[in-house]
Amino acid sequence: MTTQLDELVRGDDLKALKAAVEAMSSLDIAAQLERLEPDQRAVVFRLLRKNRALAVFEHLDPAHQEELLSRLRAGRVRDLLEQMDPDDRARLLDEMPAGIASRLLAGLSERERQMTAELLGYAEGTAGRIMSPEWVSLQPTMTIGDALERVREVGASAETVYVLPVTDESRRLIGTAELRDLVLARPGTTVDELMRVDPYSVTAVERQEAAARLMAEADLLALPVVDSERRLLGVITVDDAMEILEAEETEDMARAGGTEPLGRPYFGVSALGLARARVVWLLILIIAATLTVNVLAYFEETLDAVVTLALFVPLLIGTGGNTGSQAATMVVRALAVGEVHFADLPRVVRREFVTGVVLGGMLALLAFVPVALIFDAQIATIVSLTLVSICTLATFLGAMLPMLAKRVGIDPAVISAPLITTLVDATGLVMYFLIANAVLNL
Amino acid sequence: MTTQLDELVRGDDLKALKAAVEAMSSLDIAAQLERLEPDQRAVVFRLLRKNRALAVFEHLDPAHQEELLSRLRAGRVRDLLEQMDPDDRARLLDEMPAGIASRLLAGLSERERQMTAELLGYAEGTAGRIMSPEWVSLQPTMTIGDALERVREVGASAETVYVLPVTDESRRLIGTAELRDLVLARPGTTVDELMRVDPYSVTAVERQEAAARLMAEADLLALPVVDSERRLLGVITVDDAMEILEAEETEDMARAGGTEPLGRPYFGVSALGLARARVVWLLILIIAATLTVNVLAYFEETLDAVVTLALFVPLLIGTGGNTGSQAATMVVRALAVGEVHFADLPRVVRREFVTGVVLGGMLALLAFVPVALIFDAQIATIVSLTLVSICTLATFLGAMLPMLAKRVGIDPAVISAPLITTLVDATGLVMYFLIANAVLNL
Repeated sequence: MTTQLDELVRGDDLKALKAAVEAMSSLDIAAQLERLEPDQRAVVFRLLRKNRALAVFEHLDPAHQEELLSRLRAGRVRDLLEQMDPDDRARLLDEMPAGIASRLLAGLSERERQMTAELLGYAEGTAGRIMSPEWVSLQPTMTIGDALERVREVGASAETVYVLPVTDESRRLIGTAELRDLVLARPGTTVDELMRVDPYSVTAVERQEAAARLMAEADLLALPVVDSERRLLGVITVDDAMEILEAEETEDMARAGGTEPLGRPYFGVSALGLARARVVWLLILIIAATLTVNVLAYFEETLDAVVTLALFVPLLIGTGGNTGSQAATMVVRALAVGEVHFADLPRVVRREFVTGVVLGGMLALLAFVPVALIFDAQIATIVSLTLVSICTLATFLGAMLPMLAKRVGIDPAVISAPLITTLVDATGLVMYFLIANAVLNL
Repeated sequence: MTTQLDELVRGDDLKALKAAVEAMSSLDIAAQLERLEPDQRAVVFRLLRKNRALAVFEHLDPAHQEELLSRLRAGRVRDLLEQMDPDDRARLLDEMPAGIASRLLAGLSERERQMTAELLGYAEGTAGRIMSPEWVSLQPTMTIGDALERVREVGASAETVYVLPVTDESRRLIGTAELRDLVLARPGTTVDELMRVDPYSVTAVERQEAAARLMAEADLLALPVVDSERRLLGVITVDDAMEILEAEETEDMARAGGTEPLGRPYFGVSALGLARARVVWLLILIIAATLTVNVLAYFEETLDAVVTLALFVPLLIGTGGNTGSQAATMVVRALAVGEVHFADLPRVVRREFVTGVVLGGMLALLAFVPVALIFDAQIATIVSLTLVSICTLATFLGAMLPMLAKRVGIDPAVISAPLITTLVDATGLVMYFLIANAVLNL
């Protein structure tokens, strides 16, 4: 069982608290800090020794970092910022109001300030924003002795020395060498003999997520970032790639559930903040849902004549919503991980159409007998026919809409289960009553 | 624009096809292979030169690897398997029927066979199953010269040399050293001076996901795996961690959408396979949805008396479903990334309760006037009161149920949006009609 800092903080015994944090790993301290109240967080943080404080600080989410800084004195803030990696620092400054960010930036040393300002020059969400401007590059003609010497000279401040970009005399990226290969090669080998030519790279203006996804797929520990003329600008390391993918997936999950992403940990947001993240979609969805009121009002006569029809409304539209969500979720994920592209639209639609007919047909067959026995054959016919049509329609829409969204530049995850459900609700009801009117000759 | 292999395969010009694949990266070839028909895949694969073939093969998903092997001749299959990393090989053999797997295993060289058999001895989903049994370990008394010498001697076959486990004479893990620190240290330094003591590690029987999550949080390139006596058994590398997290997230997304995870890429499954993955949940949900039929049948008199009430059924239960999904999705994700634990239940429930009341209250206020104008004040009162109660209930259930599921060992993602929606549908209807009866004095 890990030590629970919140109890110790409430206990107000600073000595016991200090002893407790000294026995914990930086990661554990950071994880527990994120779950404390803001005031308590500052109390614990002030107890940490200098190096420890930096390590813990680096493990915190940018939103928590910002909030913590606002409770520390100026000198401490400057020290922490000065020692952060430029890319982490850029991410933190991003979180802050512009005025505060530029004041903090001005307090940094010349070198650190310049590196951070450069990163902040790239748009949010781009690879340039999160690359590290501190790398060790090699020349192709170096022997491995020279190369290792260079790593020893400048490696201490670099974010990684495991993947070493190789550049030509005009700083253009022409290869990458792995430290492993340098260490394992026999003396006298030159860098161009063991470097990977035509290495993976991204340009600084590409999306972070594309860079991270590439690193995951190609098993890269670091990815060079270049400008439009292939001149080296920085490297993205695998730990940042993992963070990007995790944040991206948290966003996709939030959207799939019909909320705006929080952009910070769950407990980093108040209950009102939660409500704010959800209210916009809820409003959009409830306005879309007024369509269902209109559809039902339009068919009120049919309903009045056969009130039994009302009994199946939630079941039918619920099933439509479920099949639609299933298809949408799967397609959204397949798009996100790159298994499916827009060009696959006809193939996806064909597959999902078949799936929808099969599922709807099966449910219709299963439903017919019980409904016929409990109600009558006419109602059973209506319910069964509606199940087939609603499942087919829902699966089709659920698969197609995210792909179209991606095509026009909308995050496919926005075409979430709740949105599909709401769309299918109204169209499903129209089909239900049209089928009912036809079967009942109304 | 990348070369489209499918067109070339259909064109039947093997020479052009061969030239095309030689110009592509292994990763691109693998990505395109996964989108071809099985027969075409084998045609392209046979054109690859030996080393290329292995690189491409390693980028394929295990399901595709298996299927491809079934179309290659025995000698080729043996070569490929022999050269794979033991952990990747174990994952592939897992995919196969036991008979084929053990025949293939028997065809391997003694060394490779033993390493793979050892991994297969751990249960599926455990850290032991995916660790690499090929590592370079150091002793604490070594100088960095000795240590680098050792890396050169045995590093070629190890999965990583960037993180080097340090063990005592009984093979117990006592630290980890980074190759970076070895290279940067001044000569004469001993390993114990620069190793990280009390290093992160997992036991072989822990869940893969926990290991991967730890690596992401602590920014580790490799994580030692030990037995219950802290004896070193293997290491997990960051590329495997990324793969595990991606698979886990694909699973969570599928469950959030109410389907069983496919366990393979989208196009790796036929339309019938898609239907199979979805039908079980669809059946469970439609059976649960018959509750709504019962509720409505129970209140049929009320419905018959005021048929207008039926008009709001889809809107009300839809809104309940949406608020429930929102809460569930957020809590499921927070549980998955470790931001929320079971001990936080009271805090989470309190927050979500407040959120539910706020959201429901807001929607109720917004709905009252239009409904009162179009219908009447009584209907507006019923709809508004139901909105508040349904939103509060749905948010509460959506937050609580995933936490309870986790507590009893069920994947919280199973308590998905569709399941919450279906539960809220029936209870929401009961509240609606109880409120209606009260307001209308029926």
